[in-house]
Amino acid sequence: MYLVIDLGGTNIRGTWMDHDGAHGTIQHASRPRTLEGTKAHFKDLVDRLRETAPRPVRGVGLATAGPLDHRAQKYLQTSNMPELNGFAIGDFVRREIGLPFLMENDAQAAALGEVWKGGIAGATNAVVLTLGTGVGSGVILEGRLWRGGHFTGPELGHVFLGPGRSRACGCGQVGCIETWLNKWAFERLASRCGLSQTQPRHVAQLWEQGNPAATACVRRYGHRIGLAISTLQVVFGAEAIGLSGGLSTFFQACEPYVWRTLRHRFTNRQWWLPATIAASPDPDMSGLWGMAKAWLDNG
Amino acid sequence: MYLVIDLGGTNIRGTWMDHDGAHGTIQHASRPRTLEGTKAHFKDLVDRLRETAPRPVRGVGLATAGPLDHRAQKYLQTSNMPELNGFAIGDFVRREIGLPFLMENDAQAAALGEVWKGGIAGATNAVVLTLGTGVGSGVILEGRLWRGGHFTGPELGHVFLGPGRSRACGCGQVGCIETWLNKWAFERLASRCGLSQTQPRHVAQLWEQGNPAATACVRRYGHRIGLAISTLQVVFGAEAIGLSGGLSTFFQACEPYVWRTLRHRFTNRQWWLPATIAASPDPDMSGLWGMAKAWLDNG
Repeated sequence: MYLVIDLGGTNIRGTWMDHDGAHGTIQHASRPRTLEGTKAHFKDLVDRLRETAPRPVRGVGLATAGPLDHRAQKYLQTSNMPELNGFAIGDFVRREIGLPFLMENDAQAAALGEVWKGGIAGATNAVVLTLGTGVGSGVILEGRLWRGGHFTGPELGHVFLGPGRSRACGCGQVGCIETWLNKWAFERLASRCGLSQTQPRHVAQLWEQGNPAATACVRRYGHRIGLAISTLQVVFGAEAIGLSGGLSTFFQACEPYVWRTLRHRFTNRQWWLPATIAASPDPDMSGLWGMAKAWLDNG
Repeated sequence: MYLVIDLGGTNIRGTWMDHDGAHGTIQHASRPRTLEGTKAHFKDLVDRLRETAPRPVRGVGLATAGPLDHRAQKYLQTSNMPELNGFAIGDFVRREIGLPFLMENDAQAAALGEVWKGGIAGATNAVVLTLGTGVGSGVILEGRLWRGGHFTGPELGHVFLGPGRSRACGCGQVGCIETWLNKWAFERLASRCGLSQTQPRHVAQLWEQGNPAATACVRRYGHRIGLAISTLQVVFGAEAIGLSGGLSTFFQACEPYVWRTLRHRFTNRQWWLPATIAASPDPDMSGLWGMAKAWLDNG
């Protein structure tokens, strides 16, 4: 039995989880924008979870925004949490809480979670994209998290997808997958298609009702997802593509357009098509599932 | 001691090679455009090489154009050698020549060769691009050839680099790295820059003399190489990038522009830069070195 926790910009969420994925209710805490406040709320949440866990806890697994060093178990220069830069959270947990500790980038944890209990459960070769404020990624090869030559793992959201983006990516490049698929890009696309309500769920509802602007938005966003997957499939040849994150709920609407673009691009290379593309049944759980899986793989 | 052979569209080349890379003179044969003719010339070349080898030959290693199945040791639907489609060359060599056999795609063999005896000798994590009529690739991770989820290995020449190419790629897609970097793309670029002699060596000579059209061509081709490497580095984070193939000789001229584009794209992610980018000291040897290395790794 493990405690699995997700630490993001403004919230900390967690629960206990068993080796079969059974888990308690998800408990929440705010995350203060200071190092000491974050430590206190994190420790408090762990104490609460430990009390509710039905069996002894063997370790803590943390999915969190990066960049981070999973080996040294510390934050690097983070994108949105400067107060945590350089924080050796592994040392903190062992010293102040007295439990073994594992941590992963949240998108890589989500990939582990999706092949274990998510939309592509059972896949052994998979690429998982987490579509949200950013676009995160995780690659599973032969059932294990693949890190390439980076100790941080590949950040596939920063693969080049094409010019035409007016705003540069946070990484400093232009044309990254992230700038075509993240929340900002989606809302801008919806707005350009003539929609005033640009939330993915609203656009999907309008699309179901046959709204032409929503149909155009669905088609174009699906095409972009297909284009991104096509580039990644040339590299990885994964059997399964998973989608997680807030925007992954939109896949239900745009699925036919994703496949249309992929089939068109792979006209002469049908064997590059993945067998499955699937959105997470519960994107909020992907990273938590993943950290239990990380413990099972490492324990 | 092994026999290492390169079989392409019009030629067969080979030599004997020792575990330290020492080798005999390269012997050549034409390749007839029939299956029976190819078999006869291949067997004849092997017999000649075997006679000149100073010590007993333990096996044959073949680097050859694909696509191919290196496990079943047969050609698949080849790009330019239809008479060899489906040819189980491994069975042929064992039965008709009586020697153990290994085969690899020529660009993957080149990658093995470049990290063993080539421009990036000693690298354990590397991406090697072979720039010629096509753009082939090989990825070395932890010293071994990496194949991803594809049994054919990734064909990185078909990763998307951007629109703007009027001619679709042979794979059926538009905007592949190959369509920006191959021989046709180079010659078209040189022509567009106002040059009448479009051979890479001529352009490099004119560039050395300060010719403005050649300078523009060098700068733009170097930028394209940098852009391709940047996309691949986000995925692989390799310590070394190797270049082989006929066009790799041009790297000497365009090296500063390759680095300029890479450094610009990785402004906020300097750790994605490779430590080394180097062209092969002898592109004709890359695949032959590689097949000796393949035997050393497998034997």
